[in-house]
Amino acid sequence: MEKISSPSNGKIKYAVKIASSAKARRESGLFMLEGARLCEEGVRCGLGIVSLFITPRALELYGDRLAGALETAEESFEITPDIANKISDTVAPQGVFCICRQPENKFSVDLNGKYLALENLQDPSNLGAVSRTAEALGVSGLIISGGCDIFNPKAQRSGMGSLLRLPVIGTDDLPGLIRELRAGDMLTVASVPDQNAAPVTEISFDRGTVCVVGNEGNGLTDAVINACELRGTIPMKGNVESLNAATAASILMWEMTR
Amino acid sequence: MEKISSPSNGKIKYAVKIASSAKARRESGLFMLEGARLCEEGVRCGLGIVSLFITPRALELYGDRLAGALETAEESFEITPDIANKISDTVAPQGVFCICRQPENKFSVDLNGKYLALENLQDPSNLGAVSRTAEALGVSGLIISGGCDIFNPKAQRSGMGSLLRLPVIGTDDLPGLIRELRAGDMLTVASVPDQNAAPVTEISFDRGTVCVVGNEGNGLTDAVINACELRGTIPMKGNVESLNAATAASILMWEMTR
Repeated sequence: MEKISSPSNGKIKYAVKIASSAKARRESGLFMLEGARLCEEGVRCGLGIVSLFITPRALELYGDRLAGALETAEESFEITPDIANKISDTVAPQGVFCICRQPENKFSVDLNGKYLALENLQDPSNLGAVSRTAEALGVSGLIISGGCDIFNPKAQRSGMGSLLRLPVIGTDDLPGLIRELRAGDMLTVASVPDQNAAPVTEISFDRGTVCVVGNEGNGLTDAVINACELRGTIPMKGNVESLNAATAASILMWEMTR
Repeated sequence: MEKISSPSNGKIKYAVKIASSAKARRESGLFMLEGARLCEEGVRCGLGIVSLFITPRALELYGDRLAGALETAEESFEITPDIANKISDTVAPQGVFCICRQPENKFSVDLNGKYLALENLQDPSNLGAVSRTAEALGVSGLIISGGCDIFNPKAQRSGMGSLLRLPVIGTDDLPGLIRELRAGDMLTVASVPDQNAAPVTEISFDRGTVCVVGNEGNGLTDAVINACELRGTIPMKGNVESLNAATAASILMWEMTR
């Protein structure tokens, strides 16, 4: 395995770019997985691994579970702990990173399924947490419009593999997609912090459903709210203005699938 | 207002200590609130403000809403943006901080109420998010045993005031408290990621209830599980081993109060 000891090596600079820049990910079609478990899951999900970077210590600790990754990676490099710290956005990196090809977005919405749509969700940790909850609750898939991309390393880490396993449908025209799904007789619900909207406990989720949750600070756009059949809300007490977006999404998914 | 321009000023060092050390908070009975909104809420909740630190820019922007804090603070200091960055744990601090007296823990459990108990929850952001959800859903209060203290600045910030408004009961003997509440005919439910436990959808929450959620990595201790009347679980699908602790707590609170 070729050794890299300089942080200014071109391969390392490129890895950092893929990890840190949504634009670089979009243009290259690549993304980065960090940590033994996530890299192993990437291989299990059939991702193509372009480059693998690993410290001697990580090779010793995780070599067995990374056998598949080490075998299928087009190129592998031994790196120093300093370089691992440079590539990683965690405090104590395990020391293993895979640059992978983004899986083809081959999913379409099943009109009988239960989906969560996210409009302009910004926080990658929220996106990851939501994906983990979605998989655990048996949600059919996520619909993502704007905001944090699913290939953000923080989102992938916080998703603990759910973003690799769950059907994810990206769209640049969420209102258009919602209108299309409404025409296909899906229930479309805009989640709003408005106590005059329909309480989610009184909505019947007995047909295919899309619940839409908005941005952490600003909620949903009017275009999305107007496209939806229903405005739904989680009844609230106390002095709280709104629930955390990930919490609201969790409760909505729970009600959809319960 | 006295000006402080040196980060090594004793008042600043003490503020940093209160913000960063749980031990210093416990020993002094003080804690720190950061940001205009939280400082304002502290005054509204009747907290005693020992020291207030503010940048000229923050005074200009938030002077009006901080009138109560500026009036009641025992001492106020003008600080530089550099010092604000030193005290703050946010990326872009607003530049206002209050060292406050911890409110007296005067609450006891209402046997007809609905409580969430947290055992050794570590992540302050989780604690804050859970408190915000608890208040929004009308939970009677939180019971806290070990883990992150409620006076952690990150927990306070993520709680957005809920940790100041919500009854919070601390205990060093959670199993003992649970046995006592059981004897008072409360339903006590240990939340476990075990598909053989009672699904929370099948538990009747029609009497006073305590649901207990454990540590992010290790869940509940056996002592707590054994003290509870029931082991309850959120039914899960997919390849997910467990839900995020804050998500599990949110769904449990929702079921308890829905």
